[in-house]
Amino acid sequence: MSGSADEFDEIARLFAPASFGAPEALGLVDDAALIPARPGFDLIVTKDAIVAGVHLLEDSPPEAYAAKLVRSNLSDLAAKGAVPDGAFLAVAWPQTWEPAARTAFAARLFEDFQRFGLRLLGGDTVSTRGPFTASLTLLGYAPQGTMVRRSGARAGDILMVTGPIGDGYLGLMAARGEGEFSQAEALRLAQHYQAPQPRLDLCEALRTHAHASADISDGLLADAGHVARASGLRVEIELDAMPLS
Amino acid sequence: MSGSADEFDEIARLFAPASFGAPEALGLVDDAALIPARPGFDLIVTKDAIVAGVHLLEDSPPEAYAAKLVRSNLSDLAAKGAVPDGAFLAVAWPQTWEPAARTAFAARLFEDFQRFGLRLLGGDTVSTRGPFTASLTLLGYAPQGTMVRRSGARAGDILMVTGPIGDGYLGLMAARGEGEFSQAEALRLAQHYQAPQPRLDLCEALRTHAHASADISDGLLADAGHVARASGLRVEIELDAMPLS
Repeated sequence: MSGSADEFDEIARLFAPASFGAPEALGLVDDAALIPARPGFDLIVTKDAIVAGVHLLEDSPPEAYAAKLVRSNLSDLAAKGAVPDGAFLAVAWPQTWEPAARTAFAARLFEDFQRFGLRLLGGDTVSTRGPFTASLTLLGYAPQGTMVRRSGARAGDILMVTGPIGDGYLGLMAARGEGEFSQAEALRLAQHYQAPQPRLDLCEALRTHAHASADISDGLLADAGHVARASGLRVEIELDAMPLS
Repeated sequence: MSGSADEFDEIARLFAPASFGAPEALGLVDDAALIPARPGFDLIVTKDAIVAGVHLLEDSPPEAYAAKLVRSNLSDLAAKGAVPDGAFLAVAWPQTWEPAARTAFAARLFEDFQRFGLRLLGGDTVSTRGPFTASLTLLGYAPQGTMVRRSGARAGDILMVTGPIGDGYLGLMAARGEGEFSQAEALRLAQHYQAPQPRLDLCEALRTHAHASADISDGLLADAGHVARASGLRVEIELDAMPLS
């Protein structure tokens, strides 16, 4: 992991726990991580970034940024049928973030890493006069040749979703205090927006049964279109059958 | 690679060339990259970030950000004796960057990827109201067990540097128009600051001869100290023998 002398201390304090003693991390004090080959498995790698005010409301708590960052990346691995393993974090701390905010971010990162079986293997911390910005590179594994691509759909395949559609948007409304929701429903939706649940429980089922798969990040229509286009097919969506909250 | 519908077009136009047709990239249209195991080799992974105004002067041209990002990350791989292979880019475009600036950044990225044997395998593009911010995750390979760590130094080892010390700082001065340099020297130093030369030519020699290694990013004293501390040793530096420009 990279950083200045002060940053080394901060990395040791804030982030070393999230490596869970992984030997690949080399204590987060080397220039790079050392990852032995895992014959019989493919390495599945994804990398997404978030910016405060773009992917989450500007005044979200640090914990929300951590949860969103981890879970949106895990959702990509889940859609490929890959089991999460390692992570590389790059984070640009806003100058306005007090140490307590950085600690809160790291604590939630640790919590979600523990929950989902991730180990921090490296990365970088920098400072910015702009909004909070971070990227996460996730490494997962799938048995050789079993990763579920976007491009594998075949004519006649049935399009399925793994949960209700639209909760992300409703969650954004709820987080903004808009819309007419019961208090319990507003809380559930805002929670879904800030900390979506990656469907890692479906990894094995996807590898076994799905010809193609993608997580929904641009909306059902757009992402179903991406799968269809990548597979050289058209897609029909049965609106009546679509699960909604 | 992730992005909205418009971003897909931009990714195809700006960044797909930098994948050089790598099968692992899946055309940069999937949720993740698919990297087969390479038995007999260790995967070496590094990830560094840069922010405009912190790692380069605020008014640097887009090409300078691309070169600095690629080369500072390659320097970490070189120090480990790893041969560069794949890359994952996350970039936050400032709202003030016109399409021409984004194109210039991507063109220089392509150029340096070609020069140093990198292939873009995935990543994410987002927008920011803050300064230009980007991170690069680099994948390299070294024959199993040959990666050069920070922690491998032994008592009696000789400390060596691979080039003149201090050019980065002099280059910052030259780029700011400070200091007293000849025009040719100012150009050379500013160039070194914006586009440092990763010492990939030394990968094999490092693997063969070095017990420990690190690139210099915090200054010779700090980084020599990191190597010594990681190895449980003290280090003596012969100032008279140090090469300076």
